[in-house]
Amino acid sequence: MAALDSQTPTAGPSARTTGITSPDMGTLNRFVVDLFGVMAYGELSAFERLSSDARFSPTLRDRAALGRLAVTEFEHFEMVSAHLAGLGVDVEEAMRPFQGSIDSFHERTRPADWYESLMKAYVIDAISGDFYTALAGRLDEATRELIGRIQSTTEQGGLLQSRLKAALADDPRLASRLALWGRRLVGEALTQAQRVGIERQFLGGLLFQGTAEDQERETVQLFAQLTRNHSRRMSALGLTA
Amino acid sequence: MAALDSQTPTAGPSARTTGITSPDMGTLNRFVVDLFGVMAYGELSAFERLSSDARFSPTLRDRAALGRLAVTEFEHFEMVSAHLAGLGVDVEEAMRPFQGSIDSFHERTRPADWYESLMKAYVIDAISGDFYTALAGRLDEATRELIGRIQSTTEQGGLLQSRLKAALADDPRLASRLALWGRRLVGEALTQAQRVGIERQFLGGLLFQGTAEDQERETVQLFAQLTRNHSRRMSALGLTA
Repeated sequence: MAALDSQTPTAGPSARTTGITSPDMGTLNRFVVDLFGVMAYGELSAFERLSSDARFSPTLRDRAALGRLAVTEFEHFEMVSAHLAGLGVDVEEAMRPFQGSIDSFHERTRPADWYESLMKAYVIDAISGDFYTALAGRLDEATRELIGRIQSTTEQGGLLQSRLKAALADDPRLASRLALWGRRLVGEALTQAQRVGIERQFLGGLLFQGTAEDQERETVQLFAQLTRNHSRRMSALGLTA
Repeated sequence: MAALDSQTPTAGPSARTTGITSPDMGTLNRFVVDLFGVMAYGELSAFERLSSDARFSPTLRDRAALGRLAVTEFEHFEMVSAHLAGLGVDVEEAMRPFQGSIDSFHERTRPADWYESLMKAYVIDAISGDFYTALAGRLDEATRELIGRIQSTTEQGGLLQSRLKAALADDPRLASRLALWGRRLVGEALTQAQRVGIERQFLGGLLFQGTAEDQERETVQLFAQLTRNHSRRMSALGLTA
C-alpha cells in the first residue's frame, strides 16, 4: 500500500520490507488505544451531527427516531470511554489525534437535507462497523468483546434501511440523488480510513503482519471487502453503488 | 391573571368567575396529556439544541459532558413518551400543539457561545422542573410519580453549576454578560409558560381551582416562587438575578 509510505518518503524500497512485522505488547497497546480513540471521537461527533440533523426531520416521529440513533452513538462513545478509562487511558488524549481528520470528513460530507443525513448514517455506520470488526479480529479478546458488544447494539441498519426504502418509494427521483451521495460518502470514508492509517500507522503495522508486500495485498483485500459490503447495502435499497 | 383571559376577549368581568372550578376526569386527562405533551416536546428540543451546541465546547471533556446532558434530556423524552403510550395517547399528537411556541422560544434564546448554552441549560432545566413539579402536586399519583422520577435523574444542576462557576472564576468579565443573559432567559421562560397556559388553558383551569380571583392570586404566587428559586440559583453562581 504505497500511500502508507508517504510518511517516510526518503526510505528506499529495501526499507519497505523492514516494517513492523511482529508488534510487541507496547506497540499493540498503542494500536488499541488508537483504535478506541478513533472510535470514540467518531461516535461522539456522529452523535452531535445526527442530533443536529434530527431537527430537520419531516415528522416528529422521524425526529424522535433520528434522536434515538444519535443517543445510541453517544452510548457507544460512553462504552469506549469506560473501556479506555479501565486501561488507564485518558479518553481525550486518545481522541485528540483523530479530531482534525474526522472533523474535516464531516465538513466534506455535510448532508443537504434529512434524507442525505439518513443515508450518511446508513452508509457510514455500516462501513465503520465493518472496518472496526476487521481490526478487532486481529486484536486481543477484551477488545474484540467490546467491539462485538457495540456492534450488537447497532440495530440502526434495519431502521435506517426501512425508512430510506419508504422515502425512495414515495419519491423515485430521490434515488439518483441518493445513489450519487452514497458513492461520494463511501469514497470519502475510504479516503478517511487510509488517512487515519497513514497518520497513525496502525493499519499497515497492526493489521497486516509480514512483508510490506503482504501488507499491501491485505490492505487491498480489506478495502475490496468494505466496498463489496457497501454495494450490497446499496442494492438492498434498490440503488446502484 | 388578566393575560389568561385573552382567549375570551368578549367575556365580561362576570364571566371570569365562571371559569373551570372543578374539572371532571375528562378535563383532567386532557390537562395531563397537555402537560406531558409540553414536557415531551420541551425535552426533545432541548436534546437537539444542547447536542448541537456541544460541538462548540472549549474542550473534548466539555463536549462529552454537554453531550451527556443532552442524552439525559432524550431519556426523559423517552420516559414521557412511554408513559403517554401507556395512556393510549400518541406522543406526536400530544406534542404538536406546543411545537410552535417552544420552537419560537428557542429562536428567541439562541446562545451566542458555549457559556450561554451552558447557562441556558442551567436556567431553563431548573425553572421547567420547578414548573412541572408545581403542576404535578395537583395531579394524580402516576403523574406525580413520573415527574418525580424525571426530576431525580436530573443531576445536571450540580454539574452545570460547577462548570459555570469555574468559567466565571477564570473570566470575571463573563459575569456581567451571563447575568444579563440569565435575566433574559428567565423573562422569556415565564412569558413562554404564560403563553402555553393561555393557548391550552391548563394553567388557570387545572392548577388553580376556585374563582378567577383565586386563580389569579395563585398564578401570581407560582410565578413569584419560580422567580425566587431562579434568583437563588443565580446567587449560587455569584450573579445578581
